[in-house]
Amino acid sequence: MAGNSFGVLFRITTFGESHGKMIGVVIDGVPSGMAVDEAFIQKELDRRKPGQSDITSQRKEADTFEIVTGIFEHKTTGAPLTILISNQNYKPSDYNHLKYTFRPSHADYTYFKKYPHRDYRGGGRASARETAARVAAGAIAKMILMQMDIKIIAYVSQVGDIVLNTPYQELNFNEIEENIVRCPDSIIACLMILRIKEVKKEGDTIGGVVSCVIQGVPAGWGEPVFDKLHADLAKAMMNINAAKGFEYGSGFEGVKMKGSEHNDLFISKDDKIKTATNNSGGIQGGISNGEDIYFRVAFKPVATIMKPQMSVNDKGEAVELKGKGRHDPCVVPRAVPIVEAMAAIVLADHYLRYKAIKE
Amino acid sequence: MAGNSFGVLFRITTFGESHGKMIGVVIDGVPSGMAVDEAFIQKELDRRKPGQSDITSQRKEADTFEIVTGIFEHKTTGAPLTILISNQNYKPSDYNHLKYTFRPSHADYTYFKKYPHRDYRGGGRASARETAARVAAGAIAKMILMQMDIKIIAYVSQVGDIVLNTPYQELNFNEIEENIVRCPDSIIACLMILRIKEVKKEGDTIGGVVSCVIQGVPAGWGEPVFDKLHADLAKAMMNINAAKGFEYGSGFEGVKMKGSEHNDLFISKDDKIKTATNNSGGIQGGISNGEDIYFRVAFKPVATIMKPQMSVNDKGEAVELKGKGRHDPCVVPRAVPIVEAMAAIVLADHYLRYKAIKE
Amino acid sequence: MAGNSFGVLFRITTFGESHGKMIGVVIDGVPSGMAVDEAFIQKELDRRKPGQSDITSQRKEADTFEIVTGIFEHKTTGAPLTILISNQNYKPSDYNHLKYTFRPSHADYTYFKKYPHRDYRGGGRASARETAARVAAGAIAKMILMQMDIKIIAYVSQVGDIVLNTPYQELNFNEIEENIVRCPDSIIACLMILRIKEVKKEGDTIGGVVSCVIQGVPAGWGEPVFDKLHADLAKAMMNINAAKGFEYGSGFEGVKMKGSEHNDLFISKDDKIKTATNNSGGIQGGISNGEDIYFRVAFKPVATIMKPQMSVNDKGEAVELKGKGRHDPCVVPRAVPIVEAMAAIVLADHYLRYKAIKE
Amino acid sequence: MAGNSFGVLFRITTFGESHGKMIGVVIDGVPSGMAVDEAFIQKELDRRKPGQSDITSQRKEADTFEIVTGIFEHKTTGAPLTILISNQNYKPSDYNHLKYTFRPSHADYTYFKKYPHRDYRGGGRASARETAARVAAGAIAKMILMQMDIKIIAYVSQVGDIVLNTPYQELNFNEIEENIVRCPDSIIACLMILRIKEVKKEGDTIGGVVSCVIQGVPAGWGEPVFDKLHADLAKAMMNINAAKGFEYGSGFEGVKMKGSEHNDLFISKDDKIKTATNNSGGIQGGISNGEDIYFRVAFKPVATIMKPQMSVNDKGEAVELKGKGRHDPCVVPRAVPIVEAMAAIVLADHYLRYKAIKE
Repeated sequence: MAGNSFGVLFRITTFGESHGKMIGVVIDGVPSGMAVDEAFIQKELDRRKPGQSDITSQRKEADTFEIVTGIFEHKTTGAPLTILISNQNYKPSDYNHLKYTFRPSHADYTYFKKYPHRDYRGGGRASARETAARVAAGAIAKMILMQMDIKIIAYVSQVGDIVLNTPYQELNFNEIEENIVRCPDSIIACLMILRIKEVKKEGDTIGGVVSCVIQGVPAGWGEPVFDKLHADLAKAMMNINAAKGFEYGSGFEGVKMKGSEHNDLFISKDDKIKTATNNSGGIQGGISNGEDIYFRVAFKPVATIMKPQMSVNDKGEAVELKGKGRHDPCVVPRAVPIVEAMAAIVLADHYLRYKAIKE
Repeated sequence: MAGNSFGVLFRITTFGESHGKMIGVVIDGVPSGMAVDEAFIQKELDRRKPGQSDITSQRKEADTFEIVTGIFEHKTTGAPLTILISNQNYKPSDYNHLKYTFRPSHADYTYFKKYPHRDYRGGGRASARETAARVAAGAIAKMILMQMDIKIIAYVSQVGDIVLNTPYQELNFNEIEENIVRCPDSIIACLMILRIKEVKKEGDTIGGVVSCVIQGVPAGWGEPVFDKLHADLAKAMMNINAAKGFEYGSGFEGVKMKGSEHNDLFISKDDKIKTATNNSGGIQGGISNGEDIYFRVAFKPVATIMKPQMSVNDKGEAVELKGKGRHDPCVVPRAVPIVEAMAAIVLADHYLRYKAIKE
Repeated sequence: MAGNSFGVLFRITTFGESHGKMIGVVIDGVPSGMAVDEAFIQKELDRRKPGQSDITSQRKEADTFEIVTGIFEHKTTGAPLTILISNQNYKPSDYNHLKYTFRPSHADYTYFKKYPHRDYRGGGRASARETAARVAAGAIAKMILMQMDIKIIAYVSQVGDIVLNTPYQELNFNEIEENIVRCPDSIIACLMILRIKEVKKEGDTIGGVVSCVIQGVPAGWGEPVFDKLHADLAKAMMNINAAKGFEYGSGFEGVKMKGSEHNDLFISKDDKIKTATNNSGGIQGGISNGEDIYFRVAFKPVATIMKPQMSVNDKGEAVELKGKGRHDPCVVPRAVPIVEAMAAIVLADHYLRYKAIKE
Repeated sequence: MAGNSFGVLFRITTFGESHGKMIGVVIDGVPSGMAVDEAFIQKELDRRKPGQSDITSQRKEADTFEIVTGIFEHKTTGAPLTILISNQNYKPSDYNHLKYTFRPSHADYTYFKKYPHRDYRGGGRASARETAARVAAGAIAKMILMQMDIKIIAYVSQVGDIVLNTPYQELNFNEIEENIVRCPDSIIACLMILRIKEVKKEGDTIGGVVSCVIQGVPAGWGEPVFDKLHADLAKAMMNINAAKGFEYGSGFEGVKMKGSEHNDLFISKDDKIKTATNNSGGIQGGISNGEDIYFRVAFKPVATIMKPQMSVNDKGEAVELKGKGRHDPCVVPRAVPIVEAMAAIVLADHYLRYKAIKE
């Protein structure tokens, strides 16, 4: 319970630091007998890796992985599945200047206060590099969900003040991977890309929002009271680096509505009970109701900027910091697969928990 | 892990239904030897109870509690502390019409899909009545935190489209309990109260936002990666009934900022390392940095309205529902103590977890 | 995780002290829709209660219980089921002399070292009275297992040096409840009873062994590596008050055997795979194999004796202690239902865990 | 919670199969800033590895390990510490004959019933090879405990019917590693070795007992009720491959004693409260009392024998099995470091849990 594991029955434990030898994940609770599509895992990792476009970090990391346990003859055995991803293209010298200095809005200072001995190189354990392990685990979770035709689609819906307001139902999700910012509206995608290039040129960064839609979850997933499905999704999203906010269904906008507008009336459709609207975001009382689940995650602007900033060192002395290294001007394009992965991990867990109580 | 417990070392387990005999909570992990102020627990429960003003439900519940275990000679022993709250003023007949009908945007349908046999009276286990148990547990958590001068203050910052935009630093928190809506700005409070009365007269309901500030948490609380302090706060808030969104620090607004604007520069002040701004909301890399922690929680409009609504029954047949009973036109005034309670529970847990790793 | 909960998916949390107002248990993970036989719960509690015969404590406790949550119209709802048992026939003055004195081989001293403020009356939280809550929870677990025709039978197989060596297969389990010591061999039962009366007359106590057989568990229950079925049974048994040892299958005697003698050869019988012998005790690699599960639990002599004993007080000064109150001369007759209850709780948990991974 | 993790605050997750690429362990909860002695880890692994003497398996495995995360400049950072151990000297063809056949008293059949797809090579995940990962993790736990002068010493106290009856206080623990069976009495060690060689010559195997003594644990470690220190030790020992029984303090022999003989009287000694005897095995009410903790673990004879045995295949057809490969004639000499490792892991966990509640 020391913070590096997540989930109850489908449970991941990640390990590794940004500038250590490798990162990785142990996945416990993978059903036995599932064929593992390694190409799919690689594809997911490639969506997250740096250097994939000129609006992401120019760091080149292959992010090649190896499944070292839990698989026999290309199928899962039910034993813990371990995936290792080696760290290759790091430049340790990039961080020597940070040994005694706290970068603003990074975890340098808080880790220093918590841990007597810390790995200061590139954020160490606090680096977003850790999320590659989550994406690999998420790919396994997605394989489980695919067997039930559950689809998880995330996309960028805001960069700075450029907002995609179109309801997700009207979007063509096939467009998402057609542009480097991962926005399903090609025109708004262009504006977003321009905006990111603009701040990049300034040596600055910008925030954004990732939206996510989950289709095909049957009614009944999620636990009452504390482990509500949306509460677990909230925790999963908020523990992604740089996340600042989470909302599902009508979200913060919904507070302005009246109950008579907000309520999702039940209707009968093709012998099934459905809702006429979906302000509930597919979850009522913490349990899925069979409608689409959708939510949004806010990400702050990346803390590492190329402009000089004032900070202090461990003695409290003022120092000037200048951004070095190769960093993202905006985190959201690469956050898309991470959001999907964490959503898949939450759902795989609640799928198993649901099975445990059903006849 | 069946969803009715929360926390790792300071761990609460709640039980009970809206229209059963009682509700209650077992609190495990309470330090031994702490004097228990029962009047304080009652005061906290009174802030949450229905019938406290004419903008809350007119249901009268005394919400008197009894501590039945874990206390000896008015002090905690370190054994599980159990608090029982009996259900008195309920009218079971109010719910007979719901036996086979699903109220829109309630948990009726999802519980029906998950549980073969459900207590349909007043939401049963899904009722917000369960939060009284959380408030009682939160009072115990607050007592632990008070010993370290940690203060948790929540207030209403939005009702419908009436927004309190003043930064929390400029508010007088003493004003919060001076009005029935619990907004620290008396003029905006008036507007909010009027708005709630207006929708109430229409037989309708409205949403709102609760803001929360936590002062005095030292640097170093929170765990890396999955149990980040803000991720645990997010889960704690999102599992409150009717919650739809969570944001901390700069939140969703922060996405519009550039890194150079958003970064909180470190400065030395009175021999301490502080930050010049606090867009981080007191948490960096998931760990407290010694600054104020603050966040906001969005609540949807209450689902029970007095206007007729269409719905379906368990056979999928269309039925007309008419709101009965005595319900809140807006949840946020009573959500204030619940938000504080859940925040206190998260912090008490991370306080113990912090102690476990510190010399 | 503060030690008062047990189980993963079927999870009990007990609370209460020997001389407080009540004890009780919250059971999370009870399947919805199960009829609850309250008479059965009472019958189980009666098997554990003091005063049931002249070889148990003469304390009279009715041990009447009340189910206060989780039940609706006599069936479980799937919400936490809470059972309260009030403490009635205690004499607090019996314990005033223990305020500053540590009884030998009790938990007085260790609790004193762990908890700044402790309830010293009758052991407080460390009292075996807590096991009444387990027996109530075990009755619920048994109801779940009965639906699958799983039977759990415990009996006394040793008191002091009087040993029942007959293999369980040759015993008539119907005899168990026919005598007050709960030994299925009437002659050995007589000897055991005489032995207990003898030590009782001396103001002394004696230890014993409880054997347990579980019939009807299908193959496949239990988890690999750390949560092996027998490891969870061991933990469950060893956390019963006064337990000193656990062995399953061939146990300690099995170490003397050769592999060629000990191995349980697989055979085909009625189109089923069975084993010719069952030294494995029904569990192989931590997972049930469909054969009978059986194990033995050693209990030390009760620490409270009526003879004077030397001890020390909290200042380290020597004091003479004289046993007061009404205590058991031998714990095993009343331990029988507790062993069964804990076995049922472990199995109910592994039943749910098994369902979670099976198609 | 799928069975491959152990511990609450000091928590290990092991992974890997006997004949896969590697095995390993992630250790979460390691305090930051501790120097890591890699030579010590190797020494511990060498005590467990096969091929170390002519009474163990002749399989040659170097069991070289690599710490791949959680360490920076030779000190722990507080991040998860991951240790990998590659599998080198296995002969997969040794197991082809087992693809469809269930070895008696192995986990072959139960895994087959639980998992649709299993790795049948050498037991796969159920192989005792997994314990190498525990020994590595135990070495880290020991380093934590050494800082408090806590010593954990295990030794072989029985092989077949050859028993070392000497009380541990009279043994010279320095003798343990002086002979290949790890018994601190050189004469009895000789007898044990002869016995093992004898059964080995017959192509058979024999069981044994490992005793363990823990010195230096202060009073107050362990949790009440369910997570009693000895209950966690019992679970830790019983989940070691081939374990059949656990007893602590007076154990099964203690049941023959009277309370007046068994009780450990408190005495004052050098201004400290001690006990005159230690039948309690250093634990009272589940919490350490400052005396030595000691316990015994029974291990069955190794299931793989070189003699032909009858069994069945997955179709239920009778087949003759002949032992192949290189196996141990007796497990206890190599179980010694595993018992110590698991004890260390339990204590490191309870050390952190103790810190969490102490001022």
